[in-house]
Amino acid sequence: MVARDSGWFTELDERGGTGFSLRLGSGGHVHSEQTPFQRIDIYDTDSFGKLMVIDGCTMVSTRDNFLYHEMMSHPVLAHHPEPKTVVVIGGGDCGTLREVLRHPTVERAVQVEIDQRVTRLAEEHFPELCEANNDPRAELLFDDGIAWMANAPAGSVDVIIVDSTDPVGPAEGLFNKGFYQSCLRALGDDGLLIQQSESPLTHVQLMADMHIAMRGAGFATVTPILFPQPIYPSGWWSGSIASKAALGGFRADATNGFADALQYYTPDMHRGALVVPPYLRRQLGQAGA
Amino acid sequence: MVARDSGWFTELDERGGTGFSLRLGSGGHVHSEQTPFQRIDIYDTDSFGKLMVIDGCTMVSTRDNFLYHEMMSHPVLAHHPEPKTVVVIGGGDCGTLREVLRHPTVERAVQVEIDQRVTRLAEEHFPELCEANNDPRAELLFDDGIAWMANAPAGSVDVIIVDSTDPVGPAEGLFNKGFYQSCLRALGDDGLLIQQSESPLTHVQLMADMHIAMRGAGFATVTPILFPQPIYPSGWWSGSIASKAALGGFRADATNGFADALQYYTPDMHRGALVVPPYLRRQLGQAGA
Repeated sequence: MVARDSGWFTELDERGGTGFSLRLGSGGHVHSEQTPFQRIDIYDTDSFGKLMVIDGCTMVSTRDNFLYHEMMSHPVLAHHPEPKTVVVIGGGDCGTLREVLRHPTVERAVQVEIDQRVTRLAEEHFPELCEANNDPRAELLFDDGIAWMANAPAGSVDVIIVDSTDPVGPAEGLFNKGFYQSCLRALGDDGLLIQQSESPLTHVQLMADMHIAMRGAGFATVTPILFPQPIYPSGWWSGSIASKAALGGFRADATNGFADALQYYTPDMHRGALVVPPYLRRQLGQAGA
Repeated sequence: MVARDSGWFTELDERGGTGFSLRLGSGGHVHSEQTPFQRIDIYDTDSFGKLMVIDGCTMVSTRDNFLYHEMMSHPVLAHHPEPKTVVVIGGGDCGTLREVLRHPTVERAVQVEIDQRVTRLAEEHFPELCEANNDPRAELLFDDGIAWMANAPAGSVDVIIVDSTDPVGPAEGLFNKGFYQSCLRALGDDGLLIQQSESPLTHVQLMADMHIAMRGAGFATVTPILFPQPIYPSGWWSGSIASKAALGGFRADATNGFADALQYYTPDMHRGALVVPPYLRRQLGQAGA
């Protein structure tokens, strides 16, 4: 949806029955284009900085992207004993890649984004998220993440981060058992996958279906991790961590060397984000997840 | 603000530059009235049940009120060694009162709501929140909370919960040093106050001002506690706990007897909610809070 009210951008989430709006700044609707994959819009907002919207859904804002990017990267990396090879599927705004590259254990970080225009527009409108793109450990590929994962050598990846749009359009194939089977094969024995799994309040069925598919593919445990994300539907969001072996503890010192650069993640926040509220545990259980 | 789009209710938060919408159900705009204090509207929503709106601001929905009500009551009560007398200022929907009365230590729970119509409409549209109103330990007063607190005997209260609207209109006087001084006087030596302190992302200045006023009134420590609240601006909300003595640990067994009735609170969730993200710590520090 584009702005319904003059001076505001609004996304209506028809699935969850909620909507979110941001007041526009003087720049207004900065850019709009249709790529071979999707429509991308850029807005200048009054209090959240720049906003990227894909097919009408908010993707990233200057102000609150740190919540999502930190929580989609540092927890899963800290759960791995020594993450050397990390693959980001999607993630074209490069904010997740930047967080991954803060970890000194990482020797190779591959980002497989299907739509090069997402990254080009991020370089222009979110340059701070792209500041690690020239890191010699980074590889920015513009390719189909499903095919890339199917072709990855077995056991060659330590951590997979699926940082995709919603399960409609180009990202649909990232939310099923076949893709998770490819991921499981590509991961080493300590391997971990995290995928954004939408709102823990208004999209619980999607979370449940994802967890069933991840377990069905052979992952040993699937663990939700919750965090606020104001620009996403309901303002409350989740990732789901699938682990090849049972998920154990995490390295509490994993972020010590760059703690000052972080805005949300701390080891204590990590522990708190792993707590599943009773209602969600019940609802996922009822759904068989 | 009332609905701008046919079939949706929308609140625009002009302070924070964000907006939130809920799709209406078949009942639509159920009720509207102007009381001596404020305008109250009731909507039937498609996915959040009933919604109460006061002066255009969302107050309570059937679906997500458990987050706010559990987090405004159980943490502060668990931090007190033995809460016997609890006062709720505002809280006319009675959802906080219901949570308070779950605690077996509580001998007296006084709710001081200025606008009787809020409670009458809650009884009609949110009967589940009012199910403890006939508990013999409950006293429902319809009076000015500021005056009530100024007249309370010194040291007579264990826990004060300020469950008010935003600091404009009738609730304005609940956000200043004079009110906090009354509260401090009314509290016993182990006394604690919690007040809703708005969004930790988009209303940080309000949080900072509140913390400064609480400390200025003589409270020893002020501690934020964070939780999701989808219907409130930014979807992320806070309480601030002010303690007469330095805030220590909490009784991890405080909710054991009624854990099955809770949807969000657990002792682990309590611990997680007390973690202050680094950006917020820095911003509150810069504001002198």
